[in-house]
Amino acid sequence: MNIKITGTGSYIPNTIEKNEAFHNHQFLNADGSTINSTNEIIVEKFKAITGIAERRYAEPELKNSDLAFFAAEKAIADAKIDAEELDYIILAHNFGDIKANTLQSDAVPCLAARVKHLLKIKNPKCVAYDVLFGCPGWNEGFIQASAFIKAGIAKKCLVIGAETLSRVIDKHDRDSMIYSDGAGAAVVEETNEEGGILTHESASYTYEEIKYLFFGGSYNTALDQDVKYIKMFGRKIYEFALSHVPDAMKLCLDRSGLAITDVKKIIIHQANEKMDEAIVKRFYKLYDMSVPEGVMPMSIYELGNSSVATIPTLFDLVKNNKIKDQSLNKGDVIIFTSVGAGMNLNAIVYKY
Amino acid sequence: MNIKITGTGSYIPNTIEKNEAFHNHQFLNADGSTINSTNEIIVEKFKAITGIAERRYAEPELKNSDLAFFAAEKAIADAKIDAEELDYIILAHNFGDIKANTLQSDAVPCLAARVKHLLKIKNPKCVAYDVLFGCPGWNEGFIQASAFIKAGIAKKCLVIGAETLSRVIDKHDRDSMIYSDGAGAAVVEETNEEGGILTHESASYTYEEIKYLFFGGSYNTALDQDVKYIKMFGRKIYEFALSHVPDAMKLCLDRSGLAITDVKKIIIHQANEKMDEAIVKRFYKLYDMSVPEGVMPMSIYELGNSSVATIPTLFDLVKNNKIKDQSLNKGDVIIFTSVGAGMNLNAIVYKY
Repeated sequence: MNIKITGTGSYIPNTIEKNEAFHNHQFLNADGSTINSTNEIIVEKFKAITGIAERRYAEPELKNSDLAFFAAEKAIADAKIDAEELDYIILAHNFGDIKANTLQSDAVPCLAARVKHLLKIKNPKCVAYDVLFGCPGWNEGFIQASAFIKAGIAKKCLVIGAETLSRVIDKHDRDSMIYSDGAGAAVVEETNEEGGILTHESASYTYEEIKYLFFGGSYNTALDQDVKYIKMFGRKIYEFALSHVPDAMKLCLDRSGLAITDVKKIIIHQANEKMDEAIVKRFYKLYDMSVPEGVMPMSIYELGNSSVATIPTLFDLVKNNKIKDQSLNKGDVIIFTSVGAGMNLNAIVYKY
Repeated sequence: MNIKITGTGSYIPNTIEKNEAFHNHQFLNADGSTINSTNEIIVEKFKAITGIAERRYAEPELKNSDLAFFAAEKAIADAKIDAEELDYIILAHNFGDIKANTLQSDAVPCLAARVKHLLKIKNPKCVAYDVLFGCPGWNEGFIQASAFIKAGIAKKCLVIGAETLSRVIDKHDRDSMIYSDGAGAAVVEETNEEGGILTHESASYTYEEIKYLFFGGSYNTALDQDVKYIKMFGRKIYEFALSHVPDAMKLCLDRSGLAITDVKKIIIHQANEKMDEAIVKRFYKLYDMSVPEGVMPMSIYELGNSSVATIPTLFDLVKNNKIKDQSLNKGDVIIFTSVGAGMNLNAIVYKY
């Protein structure tokens, strides 16, 4: 018995926010002091590091669970299953539904239940729950679905990652340019076909790393500091990711019994271009190799960092030949890997 | 191989809020109109239905993850394990951490990661995530832990339910008297001992029931309606629970191969005394029996409804002989059952 992704779908919001839109922001340092640089230079430096030229924002009338629903509908259609057959809907997010221009996150009922409602699924045995695990939440949902299938309590699961980060950004923080909105989904099924999920590795580093990514006050100290936004210590995250993600990927690959040369694609969380490149470079260095051309498809340039949504979205795009010079062939070995708040990280070795 | 609870712990906040504290509230109908009754009569009626005389509120300096940590510490000590051996920390909640007198829910990093940090666990392989599933979240976390053990990816899991509902209540809503704060936890382990989790049943009814429990505006229509509070349609929930929970319990029990006369305790979500009694009565009626005396321990009178925390807390209290005329003996068959936002419900047949 194997466990494979039989359908994928993604939702990319229509509203494009280009880097130029940030030229009139008042960016400040973390202590509230002025940055001695023009916005044009700040934005240029930002692009050089992250690779991001534009990102997507959800339309004001949509909520996170709507984005999740759009991606879910496509994944179900792609898998050619009846949605009523689903045993689980697992939805990874971190901020729930936030109505545009309001402060509160809403996850009661949980977002998976909302998606199930929108999908008009009647079967009560389709269990709908949300998982919170930082940016690696979609991968973790995939691992959980896989465990349920192995344990014999599920055959078909829908795993969704959806986030509207545009609703938790501090306009005075340069990091606000990183964040994007979107949703990706996959149907995961028990199958007799060859391949599927081979090994996984998950980890939570919380002893020293608990506040590397957090919900904090605006850099504009004149604003109410009880109003929180997504915040991060970028340098610490970069160093953390480089120290731990390549090792987790290696552990996972070695345990699968496959060789490094078998790896055809690395679908990595679209966090930051330079960081992603450094992680993959160090991973290959563990095998005394340089990075093969085309192994790391990227969508960050135009889609930014939409947290839990990046991996299922990027996988969906590559699978559908929507990333330039990228495609997948049956039997290709893929590593899905992510890192984020917690600090949590994971890696999955998967045979397409 | 069996899967058993090897340790439990709970945290009951020190601040007692008695029914009398509500005598000076301005209660309103859902449409904002005045209620034609004195507060004394409203409170008296409330007590007659729900059984609640007092509830607990977390101290202002504490957050939900702190409550979870206190319960977790006790469960780990009770299980006599080294916390570093844990493979998973699964934390069920619905509203994250909400700082007293603020509006925003904070779950970045996830609360399980915060608890792991407070427990000073260094082992990165201990995976910490949150599950959102309405009030049945702790049961669902227990089911997930059990699936991970069955699938061979875990041996020891810590499952916590924690909620600070006092921070999302609308003072103008009579239902605000139901809600309480608290946390309960259990260590779940693979074991060769007899008993443990025998069967489970989970369900999500979202087609018509999606908004029976929700996050909505104050009944005081003069207040900002974008500020949300926990809200419910009590009558609809009562009818729903009576229609579906007894059937799920029966399905679960029958699948275990045990007889109704084997059941020694029903640890039911402390939602509302009259509703809980009606559910258990209907469950026994499915077997043409009346409810045996003492089968349903209750903690609602003094602890109110603390959502995900009620089941692990009540189990911990019964196990430690802290509920009058209640105790547990090795081999006792217990049904854990819960219902809440989604609408989600579940039942677990467990041999102590």
